[in-house]
Amino acid sequence: MSSTFGTLLKVSTFGESHCRGVGAVVDGFPPRFPLTEEDIQPQLDRRRPGQSIVTTARNEQDKVTILSGTENGLTLGTPIGLFVANKDQRPDDYKELSRIPRPSHADYSYQMKYGIRAASGGGRSSARETIGRVAAGAIAEKFLADTYGIGIISWVHSVANIIAPEFSTREISRKDVDATDVRCPDKATADAMTKAIIEAREANNSLGGIVSCRCTGVPAGWGEPVFDKLEALLAQAMMSLPATKGFEIGSGFSGTRMSGLEHNDRFVQKGECLGTLTNHSGGIQGGISNGEPILFHIAFKPPATIGTPQETADFDGNDVILEAKGRHDPCVVPRAVPIVETMAALVLADLALRQKSRC
Amino acid sequence: MSSTFGTLLKVSTFGESHCRGVGAVVDGFPPRFPLTEEDIQPQLDRRRPGQSIVTTARNEQDKVTILSGTENGLTLGTPIGLFVANKDQRPDDYKELSRIPRPSHADYSYQMKYGIRAASGGGRSSARETIGRVAAGAIAEKFLADTYGIGIISWVHSVANIIAPEFSTREISRKDVDATDVRCPDKATADAMTKAIIEAREANNSLGGIVSCRCTGVPAGWGEPVFDKLEALLAQAMMSLPATKGFEIGSGFSGTRMSGLEHNDRFVQKGECLGTLTNHSGGIQGGISNGEPILFHIAFKPPATIGTPQETADFDGNDVILEAKGRHDPCVVPRAVPIVETMAALVLADLALRQKSRC
Amino acid sequence: MSSTFGTLLKVSTFGESHCRGVGAVVDGFPPRFPLTEEDIQPQLDRRRPGQSIVTTARNEQDKVTILSGTENGLTLGTPIGLFVANKDQRPDDYKELSRIPRPSHADYSYQMKYGIRAASGGGRSSARETIGRVAAGAIAEKFLADTYGIGIISWVHSVANIIAPEFSTREISRKDVDATDVRCPDKATADAMTKAIIEAREANNSLGGIVSCRCTGVPAGWGEPVFDKLEALLAQAMMSLPATKGFEIGSGFSGTRMSGLEHNDRFVQKGECLGTLTNHSGGIQGGISNGEPILFHIAFKPPATIGTPQETADFDGNDVILEAKGRHDPCVVPRAVPIVETMAALVLADLALRQKSRC
Amino acid sequence: MSSTFGTLLKVSTFGESHCRGVGAVVDGFPPRFPLTEEDIQPQLDRRRPGQSIVTTARNEQDKVTILSGTENGLTLGTPIGLFVANKDQRPDDYKELSRIPRPSHADYSYQMKYGIRAASGGGRSSARETIGRVAAGAIAEKFLADTYGIGIISWVHSVANIIAPEFSTREISRKDVDATDVRCPDKATADAMTKAIIEAREANNSLGGIVSCRCTGVPAGWGEPVFDKLEALLAQAMMSLPATKGFEIGSGFSGTRMSGLEHNDRFVQKGECLGTLTNHSGGIQGGISNGEPILFHIAFKPPATIGTPQETADFDGNDVILEAKGRHDPCVVPRAVPIVETMAALVLADLALRQKSRC
Repeated sequence: MSSTFGTLLKVSTFGESHCRGVGAVVDGFPPRFPLTEEDIQPQLDRRRPGQSIVTTARNEQDKVTILSGTENGLTLGTPIGLFVANKDQRPDDYKELSRIPRPSHADYSYQMKYGIRAASGGGRSSARETIGRVAAGAIAEKFLADTYGIGIISWVHSVANIIAPEFSTREISRKDVDATDVRCPDKATADAMTKAIIEAREANNSLGGIVSCRCTGVPAGWGEPVFDKLEALLAQAMMSLPATKGFEIGSGFSGTRMSGLEHNDRFVQKGECLGTLTNHSGGIQGGISNGEPILFHIAFKPPATIGTPQETADFDGNDVILEAKGRHDPCVVPRAVPIVETMAALVLADLALRQKSRC
Repeated sequence: MSSTFGTLLKVSTFGESHCRGVGAVVDGFPPRFPLTEEDIQPQLDRRRPGQSIVTTARNEQDKVTILSGTENGLTLGTPIGLFVANKDQRPDDYKELSRIPRPSHADYSYQMKYGIRAASGGGRSSARETIGRVAAGAIAEKFLADTYGIGIISWVHSVANIIAPEFSTREISRKDVDATDVRCPDKATADAMTKAIIEAREANNSLGGIVSCRCTGVPAGWGEPVFDKLEALLAQAMMSLPATKGFEIGSGFSGTRMSGLEHNDRFVQKGECLGTLTNHSGGIQGGISNGEPILFHIAFKPPATIGTPQETADFDGNDVILEAKGRHDPCVVPRAVPIVETMAALVLADLALRQKSRC
Repeated sequence: MSSTFGTLLKVSTFGESHCRGVGAVVDGFPPRFPLTEEDIQPQLDRRRPGQSIVTTARNEQDKVTILSGTENGLTLGTPIGLFVANKDQRPDDYKELSRIPRPSHADYSYQMKYGIRAASGGGRSSARETIGRVAAGAIAEKFLADTYGIGIISWVHSVANIIAPEFSTREISRKDVDATDVRCPDKATADAMTKAIIEAREANNSLGGIVSCRCTGVPAGWGEPVFDKLEALLAQAMMSLPATKGFEIGSGFSGTRMSGLEHNDRFVQKGECLGTLTNHSGGIQGGISNGEPILFHIAFKPPATIGTPQETADFDGNDVILEAKGRHDPCVVPRAVPIVETMAALVLADLALRQKSRC
Repeated sequence: MSSTFGTLLKVSTFGESHCRGVGAVVDGFPPRFPLTEEDIQPQLDRRRPGQSIVTTARNEQDKVTILSGTENGLTLGTPIGLFVANKDQRPDDYKELSRIPRPSHADYSYQMKYGIRAASGGGRSSARETIGRVAAGAIAEKFLADTYGIGIISWVHSVANIIAPEFSTREISRKDVDATDVRCPDKATADAMTKAIIEAREANNSLGGIVSCRCTGVPAGWGEPVFDKLEALLAQAMMSLPATKGFEIGSGFSGTRMSGLEHNDRFVQKGECLGTLTNHSGGIQGGISNGEPILFHIAFKPPATIGTPQETADFDGNDVILEAKGRHDPCVVPRAVPIVETMAALVLADLALRQKSRC
């Protein structure tokens, strides 16, 4: 288990799906910064289950408490303790799973690693684990916005085969994103996605999708080659989220089909700095931000827990039919949007502090 | 700059393209392990420039010296110092670049980050930086092979639009991969790739491509959720390589277009353990290896340095035409094959030691 | 702020003296280990204020709650969240301190570092910060005792000029230590110490002292040269405690007055291994445990907060007379005993896991 | 083995006493800094063996080569590779040691930890290991001096029972220290020390001693509570040096015999900041520098290797008489002076960068 992330801004998360609660300790956050629960709650609200027709029915309010690290609404520079209680637990839903590992879930690999696993829910592999990240990342977002004017915005780019128009270079706000339950800023596409997700749920099936993210206002110079290049840390951060299968920066896999002449981003004067005419680099060159928007995409697989009975094997190797209970999202991408944003913020804020040490 | 990687097996690399040399310190490697330069050199030979018609003409023998950490051909458990001298340097090729940042290269972002950059070659952003990784990773490969029987094999999956048949589940050896200069195990595809690369070079252009990698024999239980999940560290490792734009584990982006019912890997008895009938998970569930082969893909962009004159701006923002000199690969994927393998070995060996601490 | 300690067993503490509470996240603890609050509470009880006539009057029960990481009384291998609420807070005691930094306290240096500091109590520099360490270390103690039969015992060696007989090689138990409020196992010395402490308190003054610690049953082979030598990590751990001014291993400073011939610990057969006839090394050679008891001493200064009016300067440099309020220990060493033991346990448990990765 | 030190300024050392050489990689050093071998060599010259009548006869020039990280005499911000060749090796001196572990040396504990050890010399436990630290630390010293005007000076405070007058508050220079071979700035004391050391060597014996260190010009605000407090990292750094047995900051162990009223450092106006009238705190309060000089002492034991035949046991437990050969210092403190200075510089420079990230 390795639940600490970051070099100077260090986040340590804790909590399983069915213990007393989940949370995080944020160490290294700058002092004298206005911070209250109200700064954190909005992203937790966007992440929480039961918020719309396309998400799981588990009902958690996920109200955050700041345990330490602030006084009179200002950060002290000391560790910020964050806690969210678990409330709506139904351990009985998971009884059968003690002997049958769910296909493509973490039951089997956790059992092989630890020789034990949480008896109910996904334990530490549950999406509830991301609450600590989101709470911590919401603080990082505020730091980045207030200090550098950085804006981070994610949206649903695709659900299964339903693909939104390209928004990477268009001005959109979180309000635009949240205008639909599915968090795709194109209304027509969003409607099709919603319909597909509801159909999948009704068919006891699930769907995957792609989340896009854009970070604007990131100054040139962030990223620590060679192992902590900006895209490398973003990749680690995103691929550490449950259900992710792929990460692309800038042109990504489609960039492999371009020639160098097409792919190269020509420099031009932009204000007082250089900028680039195109942005196939995704705002990063040599592992370091170049001042252009950071652009990336993350692939989320269809959730493993589905209502349809599945042929599989129990821990003893016997063929069995598994009929899963529990409450799960038919498609995780709408709720993944704030998770992606806050994880990106954790990466950027840590690299901001590391670059400051050099100035 | 952050040039150290790993928690228990810690690799610190050093060296630019035009200094005395490049190398690495490997700390935490297990004691009493047979190790000489002969164990390391083969992967450096596969990585070295000038090895075939599809690679750069820079001529370096890249002979490695073990500076410390072994005695009488056995490791002592102490840091293993590794060094490779730089020899064929032509700093004159880079004179013009002092005032013009190369498009999609690291000149501009390094300058913005450090306020200085190596005057010739790519400095630390050059592919020569990977020599330290490859030397260190070759040691890790040997540890994994001898201790666990793990086999790691990479090959070129695509060059531009030329895509090889699927080899993820086929038995292939490094000999099969090396049968062609381009390191695609399918002869017909390889011929087409070679032709395309030579044409691109003659056209003063460059091409991208995709490298695939498969690791077999990895025991169930490796990977440290939540931030050091196996796929998260592989993603960091691969996205820290020069020219990478994307990473996929298992089904990757195509997995987003499958339903849960299609994507789920049904468990079946395999020998004394459970295995899965399909492997959309890519050998990892919940961030932990499940005993199935680890499968992943990495996107490499077309090299930024091309012979064609390019419209761009100098550091002062003036429009200029850049005609790059220097010696560069028209396509990096053939030489990326051993780099990907050895980076994967570094990730796996570190996680192997971390899991051993738990047993 | 750097509130995370350890490489494989990683402890992140949080909390100030006057926020909602204090605690820790313990990551990397082995799975399948019996653990409940009852395993942790005894050391917190030995640490808590208000327990005897020689300690501060602040009254805190310091009951610990396990927030995560266990199920049915067994550890899951996931992060163990630990929390203790702050209850008896009297912020009014600290009003004057907003403009006067207490001599030899952390007010001035915290203000210079962070540009802000907790308005009441010592904030993060308060001894309450050690609660997270003690709770985490109590878990580590249990792991060491159950797995290796390691016993860790600390006692008060001196208060001011009152020095106990040498107990380093005598069999003593925690019960012996706790037989007196002052935690010196020699009754006559303890009585003299108690008297001196009470006199110091009545004189509005404070006293320093030395705590000794012995760890028995530590197998040969723990410690990670060169920077994480066993004595180096013990020194860091102990010197990170509030009020510490010195650390000695084995012969310590007195060893500098011995010749090599006197100081060398002659090897002899002991059971199936080698042992040493003397133990000037303090159980460590070359930074690695040698199987003999680990012996060390820690110097604690007299507490800075005293009732006597003191001439000093306010933040603006004006000469002032400070009359401190607040509730404080007249001598910290009795309560330091469990803190030293649990910090030693954190060091040893982390090194145990690191050595296991090598076997 | 854990041979990496530091968070932002990260030093990784390598090399044993009888391999090709020793060195270090310094990662995270600031860019655009003048640096050549001439900046590093002086401290290596002060550390090297064979320099005077009070040191070992092993003859090594210890010339350093910068392998990477600079160009045209300026740092690039990339890892600085440093290398010193081993030349005067006499492995035959160590033949007998293959079966007899030297008392109070690291032979036994290394063998128990790694199951192998360097056949000649102390391997990684040899004082030659400190060359990498000194080379790296010399760079850190230059950074601290040029950027902050920090001066670091160590001297020999005692050899056995011969104790120098107190120099902690007196102005002395490295030239004063180097005026005598033994590096004690008081000529009469130095003469007595030299005599004692020569007598000990002639008697095939060895002596211990205490090294003092003072760092002036350190700004208030350095140190990262709670685990990376300034004195905690200094303690780790010093106790990671070969042969150290104790560490004191400020009043140290003698501070335990003072009352709070005596010990407290009264604040007074000094220039534009506050300072303290006394400095029992040793320049650190709450783990953070307060602007006063940092003062500490380190205890070094008498070297374990002595010419006198010693009764001990071989690895099989048989009683034997060991007559050690090899060339060793009769007292390490004169050569420890530059090692202590450079290790202090590594601690301070890392904390400087960490504090800069907060400004």
